[in-house]
Formats: sequence, C-alpha cells, structure tokens
Amino acid sequence: MRIAAEEARALARTLLERAGAPVAHATLQADVLLEGELRGHPSHGLQRLPRLLNRIERGLADPAATGAQSWRKAGLLEVDGNAGLGPVVATRAIDALLSRVGQTGVAVAAVRNANHLGMLAGYVERIAAAGSVGIALSTSEALVHPHGGTRAMLGTNPIAVAVPTAGAPFVLDLATSVVSMGKIHDHALRGATIPQGWALDANGDPTTDAIQAKSGAIAPFGGAKGYALGLAFELLVGALAGSPFAPDVRGTLDAEHKANKGDVFIVIEPNGAPELAERISAYLDALRSSRPADPSRPVTVPGDGARARREAALQGGIEIPDQLWRDLQSRLSKDIQS
Amino acid sequence: MRIAAEEARALARTLLERAGAPVAHATLQADVLLEGELRGHPSHGLQRLPRLLNRIERGLADPAATGAQSWRKAGLLEVDGNAGLGPVVATRAIDALLSRVGQTGVAVAAVRNANHLGMLAGYVERIAAAGSVGIALSTSEALVHPHGGTRAMLGTNPIAVAVPTAGAPFVLDLATSVVSMGKIHDHALRGATIPQGWALDANGDPTTDAIQAKSGAIAPFGGAKGYALGLAFELLVGALAGSPFAPDVRGTLDAEHKANKGDVFIVIEPNGAPELAERISAYLDALRSSRPADPSRPVTVPGDGARARREAALQGGIEIPDQLWRDLQSRLSKDIQS
Repeated sequence: MRIAAEEARALARTLLERAGAPVAHATLQADVLLEGELRGHPSHGLQRLPRLLNRIERGLADPAATGAQSWRKAGLLEVDGNAGLGPVVATRAIDALLSRVGQTGVAVAAVRNANHLGMLAGYVERIAAAGSVGIALSTSEALVHPHGGTRAMLGTNPIAVAVPTAGAPFVLDLATSVVSMGKIHDHALRGATIPQGWALDANGDPTTDAIQAKSGAIAPFGGAKGYALGLAFELLVGALAGSPFAPDVRGTLDAEHKANKGDVFIVIEPNGAPELAERISAYLDALRSSRPADPSRPVTVPGDGARARREAALQGGIEIPDQLWRDLQSRLSKDIQS
Repeated sequence: MRIAAEEARALARTLLERAGAPVAHATLQADVLLEGELRGHPSHGLQRLPRLLNRIERGLADPAATGAQSWRKAGLLEVDGNAGLGPVVATRAIDALLSRVGQTGVAVAAVRNANHLGMLAGYVERIAAAGSVGIALSTSEALVHPHGGTRAMLGTNPIAVAVPTAGAPFVLDLATSVVSMGKIHDHALRGATIPQGWALDANGDPTTDAIQAKSGAIAPFGGAKGYALGLAFELLVGALAGSPFAPDVRGTLDAEHKANKGDVFIVIEPNGAPELAERISAYLDALRSSRPADPSRPVTVPGDGARARREAALQGGIEIPDQLWRDLQSRLSKDIQS
C-alpha cells in the first residue's frame, strides 16, 4: 500500500501521543521511524511502531522520560535513559554535546537504558548540521556469530559517521552484520530463501532457509575483519556506557524487558582550515566520477543511495505492507472509541 | 635468517642514532619496527628502516623533531609533526592526551606532517595500559579502489582500538584494505600469484599477477561496507587534521617528499563500574570458548594471534630476509668507517 509520507508520519505521531508521549517526543519518534521508511529501510520504520506502542502500554518504555544526564568530566556525559524513547534520549544527549563542544573541542555521551534508536543516520546528521563531525555507535541483543563461530554472541553493532562538506554531509550508517535481522524476517515472511553466507541455523550450520535463520545467527560482514570491528564497537559501547554485552542485552526487540543496551555518541570539531569543506566535497565528487568497473553502475559514496531514495519517497510516497497499515489504523479507531 | 629480537632492536636503534636521532627517539622508532616483526607483520618491520634512514639523510624526516602541540580546545590537541618520526610525534601526543583525559574524560589529537607510524597497535596499547579506551586512525597514499571502482583513490586507512580488560587489553589493528600493499610486494618478490579479488592492475582490470597489482589498486575489505568504513575513516582524519586525502598524500612510502598525511588518536575514560574489566574479560573468554564451525580452529579474539606470535618470536627470534639484514649490517660498517 502506497501512503504519502506526511500521512504516515501524522498517524505515527498521533498513536504515540495517544499512548502518552508528549507532542515533542511523539514527533521525534515518528520522524525517526519515517526516516527509516523514506530511506528504504522498512526494518527500521513503521513496522517497529506496534511493538513500541505495546512496550509503552506495558510500562517497558516511558514516553515522557528524557534521560538523566550527568557530566562525569568536562567532555564526558553519562546518560541513564530511564526507559525513555531512544530518539528522545539520544537527541537530548546530542544537543548537550553540541552545547559543550565549543569549549572542549570533543564531547562524548555514553547512554544506557534507552529504547531502540531507530536508524542512526539522523543523529550524526544533526551533529554535521551543527558543523561538527559525528560518530554514533549502538548495540543489540546477540544476533551475530563470531567469525569461525556458530552461535549468536554479538550485536549487529551499527556505526554511523557524518562529516560536514560544502554540500550535503557525508553520512555512513551500517550494521557490522552482513545483513540485518529485519531483512531475514522479511525473506521469511515472503517465503524466500536467503543467499548462502548470510546466516547459520540454530545448530550452527549454514542455511538458506530464512525461517531457520531467524532462530540462528547472522554472519558478520567482511569475514574476520568485519567480526573484529563489530566486536570492537561492542566493547567500546559496553566499556563507555557500562552496559551489558550482547548475550545479556534485552528489550530492543522483545515485549518483556526494559531496554538495557548502550549507545555512544561522539562529537568532534573539525579542523578550522577555511577550504576544508570544499576539499572534502571535491574528493567525494572525484570518487563519484571515477571510472567504474561496470559502466552501468557508477561509483557511489555512502549516503548517496539513501538520499536518492528519500527524495523519491517524499514525492511518490512510501510502500507499507497492507496488514501493518490496517493494524495501525485500527489502533487509531480503538483509541478514538475508548 | 633468524635473528634474536634484541639483536635486531639494537641494530635498528644504533643506525637511527647514527643518523642523528636522539637516544629516546631512536629507541621509540626501533621498538615500533621491532613490534611489527614480533607480531608477524614484517611489512611494518625492519624492511621500512632503510627507506626511513634515506629519508633522514635527505632531510625529509627530522629525527629530532617532536611535533608542535597546541590545545585548540580543552580536549582537542592539534599537532604539526614537523617531519618528525611517526612514533616520536604520536607517543608525545598520546602522553599529552593521557595527562588531559582525567579532566575532560575524552581527549583527541589531530596530527599532520608526521612520518609513518608503523603498526598502530602499540599506540592504543599505551592508552589501555593507562586505563583508558584508545582509538587510532591513520591514512596513506592512494592504494585502494572504491567498491565498484577501478582506480586507487583511498588510503589503506587502518584503525586500531584498545579496551582495558582484567587481563591483557583487547587490541584490534587492521587496515580497511583486503590486504596490505606490503603483502602484495611480498608475493611479487617471491614470484607468487595473488588470489582473485585482492587487486586490480593499472588498467583497472582484475589481476592475480602481483607485479601488475603493485601499479594498480588493492580492493577494500568486505565489499561496499568495508569501502564505506575506509572512506569514513579517511574523511574523519582529513576533517580533524586538515590533512590531504589519499590522492594528494605523499611521503609515507617514497623517498622524495615530506610526509603530509594525517593521524588521529582518541582517548576516552571507561565507565567507572568496578566489575567492568572482569565483565569484558568474561565476554571475550565466552567468545573464545564458543563452539567453532571447524573443531580444529577455535574462535579467536582480535589480538590473540599477534600476542601468540610475539611470545614465540621473543623466544625463538625473528625471520629477516638475508638481503635486508646484510644491507642493515653494511650500513653499520659504513657508518663506523665514516
């Protein structure tokens, strides 16, 4: 079902407000879910809303909480998310870092106990829009097996990086798994097989059956090096936030536990050279215009695809599964009746 | 030729001292080269010494320089390496960060114009030994092609991360290329072919000929995601240090230019939870003891292999090519005669 972005955004915002979220919080959370849809990552989009609303109803997520902030040192902010919505706690933490970085040149937020952040790109874009370099790291339940291993023991451990340029910022946002669990669920729903190398089944054996993969483990991207980076990011978050490691993480996917994962945001002021932004843009353009291996597939820069998909979706609407849209609509009617 | 580590270290130190390096600088530089040998990365070991000595003789590297440090903000250190030896400039910058991080909680050094750092692991180990989390990033000449591209336009853009544990620190140190240019040179020297997927030739076509690959481009590791991360690291370093991007980087490999690349070091205080170090160690041990896909190849944690190779080499000596050892010995005699 194709829906205009603004209609979907308004519905998400309304449902969150009726669940008890202050307007500003409902807006932030709805915007993050919509960005997932607009950029072609429905796994981080509206399909997370029913679960989130359930979590609020069950008291596992507190839509009014903003996180308890405490500056442990001049540039190091500790945040207890207090079960707040991920976008609310994270945005407030980032704004605190942006207020501080003018003095310290670098500022870090170590966050624990916030709900799922959604797509990370938007957080580092907020930092780049303020003129700084931004890094975001997050963690999850154990979904990824170590290189050469058989059991899910790491999170999908995404990283996002934004760097200001003379135009739109450079934005990278990727998970350190070869694919997201959302994509595997998607294949399972459609009855499709998954490519060899994506996942192991619950016994630790390679599988192309998406349903078997759901109870197994996803492969890290890039073999030993990708595993090493994913593990390093997991340790960085755990060491800075004091949060659990993947096997003990709960509450980003389930409807039974409060979220106990960690998130880290880093803001650093770029070098003051006046021509820097132009030089970055020129370098990225040189990459884009360099000769591709396949003439029909130009070299791209991370973020280009998401930006193009976003533009198209703002014009043409977003594709939402019928059942999901009906579910959200029926929640609205129920709320109105009650 | 198998040489005792201490003999090789002493020779390197002596040659550097005779080239004009103060004892402390010669010691630091020799130690970094030796660590490359001890951990099984000869591409970052003594084979770099003749070129480095030439660079000193030609005035491209200044063995007495320590770098001009200036705190741009409370937690942000700018360093002009002033053509100093990489290990000297970097170690002095890291020590400044470690002195500052107690106040600020996080401190960053953005370094430009320092010579080649050698293996990054030692720098972040120094940070972890002081109880903090360490991240090191560096850049190089254009050696790596973009994903889907044909031309060398990115550096090998290594990253190192260290996190303190209850035992030896977790240490990751990897390049974002699928393989180092040193390994390709190594294959070329031995007349060996290289695996498909490692490199393109000067025309941008895939090659298994190591000699053709030397004038071509190395692949990024892990496809699109590895390219994205390597590019993000390159932009982070350039944006923070104000240093050139790969196509304009000179002087880490050649004997004609001063080094103009950038390096970044980040030091962050870990969360103060008393059981944190033990919890990290327990998690890493759980990974190591998890069931491997191949029973004969246990799951490892980044740094395990390097630590084992280092122990063995400290006992059994390091393998140095005959010609390299003779070259270094003859420099010693020449120095003594002159």
